[in-house]
Amino acid sequence: MIVVKIGGGEGIEPGPLLANVAQRHAAGERLVMVHGGSHETNRVAEALGHPPQFVTGPSGRQSRYTDRATLEIFEMVYAGKVNTTMVESLQAQDVPAVGLSGVDGRLLYGRRKASVRSVENGKTKILRGDHTGTVDQVNHALLTLLLDAGYLPVISPPGMSDDGVAVNVDGDRAAGAIATALEADALVILSNVPGLLKDVSDPSSLIRHVDADRPEAVAPYVQGRMHAKLDGAVRAVQGGVGRVVLASANVPQPLDAALQGEGTVVQ
Amino acid sequence: MIVVKIGGGEGIEPGPLLANVAQRHAAGERLVMVHGGSHETNRVAEALGHPPQFVTGPSGRQSRYTDRATLEIFEMVYAGKVNTTMVESLQAQDVPAVGLSGVDGRLLYGRRKASVRSVENGKTKILRGDHTGTVDQVNHALLTLLLDAGYLPVISPPGMSDDGVAVNVDGDRAAGAIATALEADALVILSNVPGLLKDVSDPSSLIRHVDADRPEAVAPYVQGRMHAKLDGAVRAVQGGVGRVVLASANVPQPLDAALQGEGTVVQ
Repeated sequence: MIVVKIGGGEGIEPGPLLANVAQRHAAGERLVMVHGGSHETNRVAEALGHPPQFVTGPSGRQSRYTDRATLEIFEMVYAGKVNTTMVESLQAQDVPAVGLSGVDGRLLYGRRKASVRSVENGKTKILRGDHTGTVDQVNHALLTLLLDAGYLPVISPPGMSDDGVAVNVDGDRAAGAIATALEADALVILSNVPGLLKDVSDPSSLIRHVDADRPEAVAPYVQGRMHAKLDGAVRAVQGGVGRVVLASANVPQPLDAALQGEGTVVQ
Repeated sequence: MIVVKIGGGEGIEPGPLLANVAQRHAAGERLVMVHGGSHETNRVAEALGHPPQFVTGPSGRQSRYTDRATLEIFEMVYAGKVNTTMVESLQAQDVPAVGLSGVDGRLLYGRRKASVRSVENGKTKILRGDHTGTVDQVNHALLTLLLDAGYLPVISPPGMSDDGVAVNVDGDRAAGAIATALEADALVILSNVPGLLKDVSDPSSLIRHVDADRPEAVAPYVQGRMHAKLDGAVRAVQGGVGRVVLASANVPQPLDAALQGEGTVVQ
């Protein structure tokens, strides 16, 4: 059982992964896909005159503020455009893919964080009406039902919250929770970088191995989006997933390469 | 087994239907929902600077021309926004809804019509690159798998075509094909009119019954969107569906009302 997540950052090309997934599915492998869509969401949100809003919290870390209108744009791009286009491409390659958002069957269920703290001019403000949440439970029975019938689930945020509304959930952490729930042999997280780098400007500075019991050893090199990726990876390994590989989507056969160790292996 | 389709025309409010579906699901009824999204698609397409394109064919009938950009907007609104919002609302009412587009598992599969004839200034032109298709096969095994496990499928166009691409399919005809494939006891098609009217400006001119063996008897009253609705209804009854009711979505308990005969019953 392999779970593979492909990010939605700028410059990530899903074609090579989809072809590789089709080959491995044809060879009989049990697979689940998870995807992002952040770059396209930002593009559509700008085009609709509702650009993404980012806030800086007291810790200094940036986060997205998701009001209802932003959530609906997020759903349009993730669950509508990106998900359907990936499923269409897999179907065209004879893979019986089924797209699901985390709302479907409460596939990704957790707590809503309805407010976010924002520091502006040194003052902390509370912004209410945020549609962000965590993934605390995965409906693995729904995934097993589909997998046992031969389908390949293609999963997208948002998730469903205890507050009765859909919420933006982090795709990397969602992939980690899915891999854990399915007791996957491996979770592969693909993006536009070759893995965790000591120097983000130097691909040859790749860190080939992270000990899931001692992630603090690489803490100095963890920046920006890599926080969620590494956090999701460590939790997944601690939760029983065989290994997690952070690797590049933009190489031939990206899933094969990652599973052969081309990337940062968290174990 | 009941299949209910709610249109996406202007002024159609899904709230009453969703509450009614939740009640009937809680009472143990086997249900499938199908929905449209045309008005919201037109709104988003305008906002994105890619307004809907309509052409007039040699028969004088108007049809939509769906280029790739339009298809992707269509997917964003139907499979992204409208579908996810309906599933979210059902989940909030404790219904284990699962949203699917016709691309998922080739749920709605058929032939692509890649070109459309357009009459302009008396000359017929062929427009290529259309993404429109028919529904010739329904993956009823996927629906039965979900229904048997207690889920309520919520289905949206597009469909998948023999050409390997997603296509815009008519929602009413898709609902008819789904009801036929599931051998449904009834198909209810809800919109912003109370049924087939002799005079579209007079709701009291409702035609209460259409004989599925003699639909030509009401042909003088069939206009615009009612063509597809009645065609879908007649084919469904001919295909074995117990009865089809065309009725209003904008009444309290719209599904109960339609099943009690409030609307145009095709049988």
